[in-house]
Amino acid sequence: MWKDFRSDTVTQPTPAMRQAMMAAVVGDDTLGEDPTVKKLELLSAAMFGKEAALLTVSGTMANQIAIMALTQLGDEIIVGEEAHMYNLEVGALAALACVQARPLPSQEGRFAVSDIKKSIRPRGVQSPVSRVLCLENTYDLNRGYPLPPAYQAEMAQLARNHGLAVYLDGARIFNAAAALQCDLKELAQDVDALQFCLTKGLAAPFGSMLVGSQAFIEKARWIKQRLGGGLRQAGHMAAAGIIALETMRERLHEDHANACRLANALAAIDERLVNVKQVKTNVVQLDFEKIGKEAAWVTEALLQQQIKVKPIGPYACRMITHWGITAGDVDYAAHAIQKIIK
Amino acid sequence: MWKDFRSDTVTQPTPAMRQAMMAAVVGDDTLGEDPTVKKLELLSAAMFGKEAALLTVSGTMANQIAIMALTQLGDEIIVGEEAHMYNLEVGALAALACVQARPLPSQEGRFAVSDIKKSIRPRGVQSPVSRVLCLENTYDLNRGYPLPPAYQAEMAQLARNHGLAVYLDGARIFNAAAALQCDLKELAQDVDALQFCLTKGLAAPFGSMLVGSQAFIEKARWIKQRLGGGLRQAGHMAAAGIIALETMRERLHEDHANACRLANALAAIDERLVNVKQVKTNVVQLDFEKIGKEAAWVTEALLQQQIKVKPIGPYACRMITHWGITAGDVDYAAHAIQKIIK
Amino acid sequence: MWKDFRSDTVTQPTPAMRQAMMAAVVGDDTLGEDPTVKKLELLSAAMFGKEAALLTVSGTMANQIAIMALTQLGDEIIVGEEAHMYNLEVGALAALACVQARPLPSQEGRFAVSDIKKSIRPRGVQSPVSRVLCLENTYDLNRGYPLPPAYQAEMAQLARNHGLAVYLDGARIFNAAAALQCDLKELAQDVDALQFCLTKGLAAPFGSMLVGSQAFIEKARWIKQRLGGGLRQAGHMAAAGIIALETMRERLHEDHANACRLANALAAIDERLVNVKQVKTNVVQLDFEKIGKEAAWVTEALLQQQIKVKPIGPYACRMITHWGITAGDVDYAAHAIQKIIK
Amino acid sequence: MWKDFRSDTVTQPTPAMRQAMMAAVVGDDTLGEDPTVKKLELLSAAMFGKEAALLTVSGTMANQIAIMALTQLGDEIIVGEEAHMYNLEVGALAALACVQARPLPSQEGRFAVSDIKKSIRPRGVQSPVSRVLCLENTYDLNRGYPLPPAYQAEMAQLARNHGLAVYLDGARIFNAAAALQCDLKELAQDVDALQFCLTKGLAAPFGSMLVGSQAFIEKARWIKQRLGGGLRQAGHMAAAGIIALETMRERLHEDHANACRLANALAAIDERLVNVKQVKTNVVQLDFEKIGKEAAWVTEALLQQQIKVKPIGPYACRMITHWGITAGDVDYAAHAIQKIIK
Repeated sequence: MWKDFRSDTVTQPTPAMRQAMMAAVVGDDTLGEDPTVKKLELLSAAMFGKEAALLTVSGTMANQIAIMALTQLGDEIIVGEEAHMYNLEVGALAALACVQARPLPSQEGRFAVSDIKKSIRPRGVQSPVSRVLCLENTYDLNRGYPLPPAYQAEMAQLARNHGLAVYLDGARIFNAAAALQCDLKELAQDVDALQFCLTKGLAAPFGSMLVGSQAFIEKARWIKQRLGGGLRQAGHMAAAGIIALETMRERLHEDHANACRLANALAAIDERLVNVKQVKTNVVQLDFEKIGKEAAWVTEALLQQQIKVKPIGPYACRMITHWGITAGDVDYAAHAIQKIIK
Repeated sequence: MWKDFRSDTVTQPTPAMRQAMMAAVVGDDTLGEDPTVKKLELLSAAMFGKEAALLTVSGTMANQIAIMALTQLGDEIIVGEEAHMYNLEVGALAALACVQARPLPSQEGRFAVSDIKKSIRPRGVQSPVSRVLCLENTYDLNRGYPLPPAYQAEMAQLARNHGLAVYLDGARIFNAAAALQCDLKELAQDVDALQFCLTKGLAAPFGSMLVGSQAFIEKARWIKQRLGGGLRQAGHMAAAGIIALETMRERLHEDHANACRLANALAAIDERLVNVKQVKTNVVQLDFEKIGKEAAWVTEALLQQQIKVKPIGPYACRMITHWGITAGDVDYAAHAIQKIIK
Repeated sequence: MWKDFRSDTVTQPTPAMRQAMMAAVVGDDTLGEDPTVKKLELLSAAMFGKEAALLTVSGTMANQIAIMALTQLGDEIIVGEEAHMYNLEVGALAALACVQARPLPSQEGRFAVSDIKKSIRPRGVQSPVSRVLCLENTYDLNRGYPLPPAYQAEMAQLARNHGLAVYLDGARIFNAAAALQCDLKELAQDVDALQFCLTKGLAAPFGSMLVGSQAFIEKARWIKQRLGGGLRQAGHMAAAGIIALETMRERLHEDHANACRLANALAAIDERLVNVKQVKTNVVQLDFEKIGKEAAWVTEALLQQQIKVKPIGPYACRMITHWGITAGDVDYAAHAIQKIIK
Repeated sequence: MWKDFRSDTVTQPTPAMRQAMMAAVVGDDTLGEDPTVKKLELLSAAMFGKEAALLTVSGTMANQIAIMALTQLGDEIIVGEEAHMYNLEVGALAALACVQARPLPSQEGRFAVSDIKKSIRPRGVQSPVSRVLCLENTYDLNRGYPLPPAYQAEMAQLARNHGLAVYLDGARIFNAAAALQCDLKELAQDVDALQFCLTKGLAAPFGSMLVGSQAFIEKARWIKQRLGGGLRQAGHMAAAGIIALETMRERLHEDHANACRLANALAAIDERLVNVKQVKTNVVQLDFEKIGKEAAWVTEALLQQQIKVKPIGPYACRMITHWGITAGDVDYAAHAIQKIIK
């Protein structure tokens, strides 16, 4: 059987989710008449302490809707240079929102205050308006850094002092909350709006939730329709999402423990392979440069062992633990890696 | 119990669809690994005699993807002035595709050749490029005109003579095929690409299919991702879509018969209410102007009788028959209308 | 010597304009330091009774800046179907402003109230927002209809009742004012913003002026910079513009008299050639359909006589009178047309 | 009398330019009939060894047209993080061209090969297409680094190996050529298209020239019209531009000598003020941080001495030498700076 460490997006729904999909009470969501979608939206808003929520198709859609709702044509937004919305959303920021990205470097997932300050445009006839600071938590899909509420608060304060809104891409916010042992509301309180995914670690088959003020969500609903994200009998999918929120959050600790177990096992093989201290959620980045193996070769060799990893650079691979990966799978993978690099 | 004639978008999935959703074999569709989605895409392409197909979130998304795939920033497209993509897609043509719409009048759902010719821009430094002729079949959501293959062929030939591509919004193409008693391939053969909906008359809870050449679908897949339409374990929804295609097309004749029954019953009450000859698929347009009733008043009065209709003008309402409406419902509604207008 | 009736855009500057260009006091206008540009902007605002004005490169640029300043991405604007901004600005409304045009038919240059009402979108999750009503005066580059202040006021009131702003493309507003014998302020008072051209009838070599509120012009200045319309030592061009405003407006009556003379001469030749009553400013439209001559043939035949006209359809040509056309030229042209069609 | 060191954009036209403006033979350039514009375009193309050229309103317009002509909606371009088009063009890349910028750091004006390689996107369903590498020469408006042909060739080769086009923003290309003592054709030969300004160091009042292949220029002319850059009797401005190209290029050595003189004088006052080695063209960057003076204070103090400089950071100012600055002005300024910082 395959051990798929490429991403937590490959997670299969639980039997309870399948059952819930079948049994869901549904209606036409574009008309605002799907009771299960409404239930999921209320639950999501409450969980993060915000006024309202909106079911969207994907994290990408949720991010782009949020940016469109918070900006005007030609604005500039500040994002991490490893941010999903800058790198893995097909250029949508410029293509759809007509917004310029100002990417920022980071250290261990954090921006320098001086970099943010420098990146905010002065007003002037030649300058776009800096409109939104975008955070991502956990940050960097190839690292998975959890960012504590205090850091978010500091960044948000800085942004607000310059008139910027603050948006949080929380595709893996539950991993952040689990790693930081903090409440979701703490991670939401300093941002104007955020999204989280029901898929990935939570294993639902569909959907991401936008969360924010009533006015923001109303505008977002309208932009979602423009993007073709208007849904019909979406309660089937929402039903699985509700199960995800109710039953899958607690178990993320297992994924983190498995990532840690993997990192330690790899470090024991060769400490140059992995930076154990950086592994704080469910992502392990492997660096084969110092041992002279190319990522493509490693990926191919592991495929022979029924193991899938993701090459993310000439010498680097990424492994993500999730609902479909057990401690046994981790041990098996570590062993396989040891074999192929000897 | 409510009789909901507002739209066929309110249709509930069949028990077989619910069962199929639960049982579906699924994978990460963004990675191209959902076998049920693939099966639906192959089935759709084959059904229309095209090379490839793509599952999208909605008819709106499918339409907008198609236009983006067929145009370049700043192009112009020719569309019917009653077209869904011009009127009910939140301005996406300009907002997202950066494409100008050139709307055309129609008679009984058909464009005049002279109007099309006049609407194609001459080349020149001040003119946008006319790039796509957009058809819709059935045309006009408030009329539901089926357009025969010969008409489509004539329009397509005209467009091609001037270098335009031809796109077909076939949200209700199965209604057209049923009414015209023609093969789906005949309706597809003269267009470069088309979309059809699994929801609406076919009663699936989710999704529309784009169909076209391999190259077109490849580009479309990439644009879909940009719009946030990338899906994860979408096989659950695709499974319902397969049931829809396999079991729900044949019964559209019932909806058409019911629409006809409704139109005739209304004409019998007062012939000014409805133009029976125009009712060829599942849409009945009611005109209360000559009998002096406002659409808002009619709509409200029928709500008291557990009947929902859609006001579409100061004196006009629309009633659509579908999977959730029986002949008995039609008779009940005709009777109710008779009562309120006397 | 050539008689060029194609357009009034071919007008040559006067000797006084050439002198003024040479002698102009200039500065860096992007820094706001060109005194001659400032003088022209103050003069323009005062002339139309508005707070402020802005020198732009062209009527197209002025129109597009105005729409961008008055709308948000994805809005809809209502324009005449013969409007310059819809037909002759390379699709910029959608390409740059991301705004959908809703074109309206007209009779003798005027919209029907019922058409405007029908074209304003109801609020709803599937609808774009109708944001601006665009007038053009004189309307229709191939007709040149002057629209009286009372008509503008009626349209503006209708628009405002539905929350729309009103913009006026006054590329030939001075022709309208001359024909209507009204004050420029009367033509400006009911609109939020307008543009007029210094070129064309006024014969300056460069520039169009946007006129409106202080806040509008401030935003417009910023958008102009984004379009690459930021100017350096533009006082040279502004100096010619000032001469145009000060010395060329009074003489537009001559152009109108010449257009009338031309129309009457043509009607005397064959009354099917021209609709004399429609000629109210400097545009004469010739229809050769009923006498069986194609526009391309006519155009070519007149070129042999050193006369340039513009073909605007299979059988139609346009002739515009201007600063470079004398009464003698008109007589010469009428005579030449008589010769070629016999 | 003021000594204005803020930018070379403040340069006044020469008497010969004024004379040429007045005397120019002109026509309607939108119709392609201005002989003086045509002469300037031919001269520009020949000078850079390219097929064709186009007069545009400004460097910003030329840059944006080029990007639009070389990309498709949603593409990504690679630019220096100090590039004018990324920082000082009001976000036009995203606002108008719908293109995402990927900014690169530089050392002494040069990109690292490894940074460029890393910034080119792999093909994939989540990635935009990397389409153009943008160079700027001289690079960085606050530094003015001249980049030799060999460096440009290396960058261009790298870009082409990955399928990217190469564009050069040569707003100050004549300064680069003067500093490098190389031919303009050498600076043009490795790029697909470039623009240069007639204003700035060359002191014309208006215009920038796009230079490239015939097909590129044809597309550019059309896009220019869309941006509202279509010109009428532009020969007046073109005439000044021809004088600029014919008479003002040779004297740029004086500006460079003056910049050098200024840098040396400042270093003699306090070597922490300026990095003399970096001054290679007409830009001098002053750093007051180590001597504890804020840029705003310095700027204000120098204004009292009739000297204008541009603050570009909390402690940094920029001084640019040009046609309006003599060696005497430089000595006067250096003396004034010495006085205020003591």
